[in-house]
Amino acid sequence: MSDPLLDAIAGGVRVYDLARPMEIGMPQSPNHPQFRLALQRRHGDAIRADGGSAASELIITGGHVGTHIDALSHVSHEGRLHGGLDAAEAQRGGRFSDLGVETIAPMVCRGWLLDVPNTLGVRACEPGYEITPDDLARAAAQHSVDPQPGDVVLVRSGWAQRWDDHEAYVGHDSGVPGPGEAGARWLAALQPRAVGADSIAFERLAPGAGHALLPAHRVLLVEAGVHIIETMNLEELAHARVYEFTFILAPLPLVGATGSPVRPLALVSETAR
Amino acid sequence: MSDPLLDAIAGGVRVYDLARPMEIGMPQSPNHPQFRLALQRRHGDAIRADGGSAASELIITGGHVGTHIDALSHVSHEGRLHGGLDAAEAQRGGRFSDLGVETIAPMVCRGWLLDVPNTLGVRACEPGYEITPDDLARAAAQHSVDPQPGDVVLVRSGWAQRWDDHEAYVGHDSGVPGPGEAGARWLAALQPRAVGADSIAFERLAPGAGHALLPAHRVLLVEAGVHIIETMNLEELAHARVYEFTFILAPLPLVGATGSPVRPLALVSETAR
Amino acid sequence: MSDPLLDAIAGGVRVYDLARPMEIGMPQSPNHPQFRLALQRRHGDAIRADGGSAASELIITGGHVGTHIDALSHVSHEGRLHGGLDAAEAQRGGRFSDLGVETIAPMVCRGWLLDVPNTLGVRACEPGYEITPDDLARAAAQHSVDPQPGDVVLVRSGWAQRWDDHEAYVGHDSGVPGPGEAGARWLAALQPRAVGADSIAFERLAPGAGHALLPAHRVLLVEAGVHIIETMNLEELAHARVYEFTFILAPLPLVGATGSPVRPLALVSETAR
Amino acid sequence: MSDPLLDAIAGGVRVYDLARPMEIGMPQSPNHPQFRLALQRRHGDAIRADGGSAASELIITGGHVGTHIDALSHVSHEGRLHGGLDAAEAQRGGRFSDLGVETIAPMVCRGWLLDVPNTLGVRACEPGYEITPDDLARAAAQHSVDPQPGDVVLVRSGWAQRWDDHEAYVGHDSGVPGPGEAGARWLAALQPRAVGADSIAFERLAPGAGHALLPAHRVLLVEAGVHIIETMNLEELAHARVYEFTFILAPLPLVGATGSPVRPLALVSETAR
Repeated sequence: MSDPLLDAIAGGVRVYDLARPMEIGMPQSPNHPQFRLALQRRHGDAIRADGGSAASELIITGGHVGTHIDALSHVSHEGRLHGGLDAAEAQRGGRFSDLGVETIAPMVCRGWLLDVPNTLGVRACEPGYEITPDDLARAAAQHSVDPQPGDVVLVRSGWAQRWDDHEAYVGHDSGVPGPGEAGARWLAALQPRAVGADSIAFERLAPGAGHALLPAHRVLLVEAGVHIIETMNLEELAHARVYEFTFILAPLPLVGATGSPVRPLALVSETAR
Repeated sequence: MSDPLLDAIAGGVRVYDLARPMEIGMPQSPNHPQFRLALQRRHGDAIRADGGSAASELIITGGHVGTHIDALSHVSHEGRLHGGLDAAEAQRGGRFSDLGVETIAPMVCRGWLLDVPNTLGVRACEPGYEITPDDLARAAAQHSVDPQPGDVVLVRSGWAQRWDDHEAYVGHDSGVPGPGEAGARWLAALQPRAVGADSIAFERLAPGAGHALLPAHRVLLVEAGVHIIETMNLEELAHARVYEFTFILAPLPLVGATGSPVRPLALVSETAR
Repeated sequence: MSDPLLDAIAGGVRVYDLARPMEIGMPQSPNHPQFRLALQRRHGDAIRADGGSAASELIITGGHVGTHIDALSHVSHEGRLHGGLDAAEAQRGGRFSDLGVETIAPMVCRGWLLDVPNTLGVRACEPGYEITPDDLARAAAQHSVDPQPGDVVLVRSGWAQRWDDHEAYVGHDSGVPGPGEAGARWLAALQPRAVGADSIAFERLAPGAGHALLPAHRVLLVEAGVHIIETMNLEELAHARVYEFTFILAPLPLVGATGSPVRPLALVSETAR
Repeated sequence: MSDPLLDAIAGGVRVYDLARPMEIGMPQSPNHPQFRLALQRRHGDAIRADGGSAASELIITGGHVGTHIDALSHVSHEGRLHGGLDAAEAQRGGRFSDLGVETIAPMVCRGWLLDVPNTLGVRACEPGYEITPDDLARAAAQHSVDPQPGDVVLVRSGWAQRWDDHEAYVGHDSGVPGPGEAGARWLAALQPRAVGADSIAFERLAPGAGHALLPAHRVLLVEAGVHIIETMNLEELAHARVYEFTFILAPLPLVGATGSPVRPLALVSETAR
């Protein structure tokens, strides 16, 4: 069989892992269940007649824990989900009959990186800094980022450098950088299938304000129907100056859920230039 | 940028979803935690000043629940993991310091389907049927399946047709078809990075015997260091007669776990012939 | 200090444990989360400088798992909880603002046993048998059971003898014995603070019908405001022919929950006659 | 029937609730699973043919979360549990075959309160203050506390006043008051069946040191076989100047667990003087 995709893979592909490791104590929003993993069975607990033994675990998580994607069912505005669906009706039964995370088609498409701190000439955006449409436009121009409808656009703030410090990364007191309503509108106008960020919330959070208001979520999830990916690791991609890539993301098909932990990948052919 | 992979994607790709939906009541092994998802917060529970509201969930799962991959830490033989590692040492601390599921590199590689019932001329293998090396060799020859080291090999038994009947799919009383020790050795000799099955265990299970002995796991995970993917949906692929494809799988990076729910994909260029 | 209660305790008290052990695989309703306990930390995982080590667990349960009590928030009828409260309002926020299990005062009161199979002259009530008001009245008369308002009344069906067989105890196909609407009304007229049963549901379940209708729950929880205790072990009490006793039950104060696992006790002074 | 215990109950009993409400966000040790409760089903999700509906929850907890009791399996010293049992053997299989929390007999016995801050003339012990044998002896003498073997002894530090401030109650930076090794030995010499405290750990914790060393646990659980109850609410009891009472505690029978959330009660006859 001759398949251009297989041929491209055979030519060599560099894989960038855009996910954070999931482990007890990792930074996560206090609104969501604390990640927990316990080995329910360890080797030696039970030994089969042939000398074999198995270990396995019990996992507690939330749909918005670790690197994750938001389904359109995640946020409503004045009782309505994207497309004007009645939120109360959609959630009746204890899982979403519409817009659940299992309805997100696996993404195998073009992706782009907007490296904002690189454009701003800083190591990372300041805490609480609002990423503006102008910042985004300048970052796009600088690195020839030209998203078409259906592509994925990742916005780096550099916040991911704080990952190893739980409190600093959550950033409740300091605030967290991110696009505000205006930046979200600029992105939505590109008609991407998803946008991503390297902080927990794809929002600019004011110092001490937490998640009191989430205008970028409203614009993207409710108004524009654009999925949001959060808690990504974009450092390696930025360091390698990769701004255009093949983007892969396949959420767990959690029926009726509002989000899913994910392991997104950026792929670049080794022969690309 | 000219990137053969991006060009191939731009040319059009058909995506086959090889995962089963995850929901309460789906078939799963009784050895593992029962999947459970509950909306901890629903729209309207709390409404922000601007009229926004969010819903989210609490998820209970295991690493071997739903479509999932086995890490090499999952099975030991006489106290040893793959490579002779001491299982007791590796699991000390309550998570694996070696061979955890987070050490599995994301798979972006060539994949192959061995459609055994098609070769045998049956709709699906009989309950408790042991898939032999000869069956596998014939299926490979029939469909020009020619795996090279590092490829992924999926073995279809047709068992997935029982998915909608929990008890029938688990198959405790009936037994379940699959490769035995000999079949596993035949596969291991191909040096794949992973093998997959459309039943819960990549094993032939005798009627009424459950998981008393797991020789294929020993051969693949312990001796050969080959990952196992289980509870896959291979029906669509078989129906489309796709035997060679680009295989994508990225386990959740659950640090120190023995397995992870996954959403594997098979990709075929629309121009392939 | 002279305290009659302390004096009575000092005189010797026989304690009857009315709870079932909680463990993986125990009988429970499939409507509720499967009980799961995993040691997240074992001795030797981490050793303190002085040679000490600790073990601890992660527990998954539901409020209606194991021997448990139903709060009045558990059941509604036509959108109303006991006292006419609006069920939708009470549950807003993801936990009950009214009638949660934490509002049940600890019970330290008189309890009574109605031993129905003893009165009927059988080892245990037949599967699907409806315990009638006449059965209850005869059992009361036979054993001088004379409940006053505020007492607790336990109704034995003998079903608990099936505890060791998960499927038999759940009894989906066979049906389960218990009071129907008429029996519940007879009990409610006594104005007890709680009633208890030795099956999972304080109901007569028809063969194959499961929990399609729960009239006793409606009468007791919604109309009469009487708590229901289920999955009790009443065998020992019956064997000892103890029909009147001090009843102790203290639900976990799970704020806003609809039920709680409990460990109810029946106490009898050793000098009682 | 004439039963002194029933007569005493009939005479009127004041019930003191010694447990803290269990809810998301309550203070708990970061070593243990974060308490979480989600309504998996709400009224209106499914409505039965007769107009009835039920709500229920999914609960995540640990055995040492909320007001709880430590089983003797909780702590080991140099690989040995109380009585010299081999800790590794006892925990094989993923639950304790010996000394699990289900082996603790329900407590219906005499209890005593040692009100240390009252004796010291302070509102509450200082953070990091070590409660000495002399403090305990003085508190006992002052309030005629005279425990006999098999009684329960509760030690108040006043720390419970910080309950509403999660960080202050956990007290990592400040330290937490409690008995040290010497105080634990003084208590163990009384041969109580259990001791209790109003802080998370029945220990004096030095500022910033966390749970690095737990000498009181070693003395009580490993050497003396005395259970420990933690996170109690002793404020009401102290305020009422109740130093002797009937103590009731019935742990959930979690088979093979190292601890259990509990709802302990102190009872006083209304006619006591």
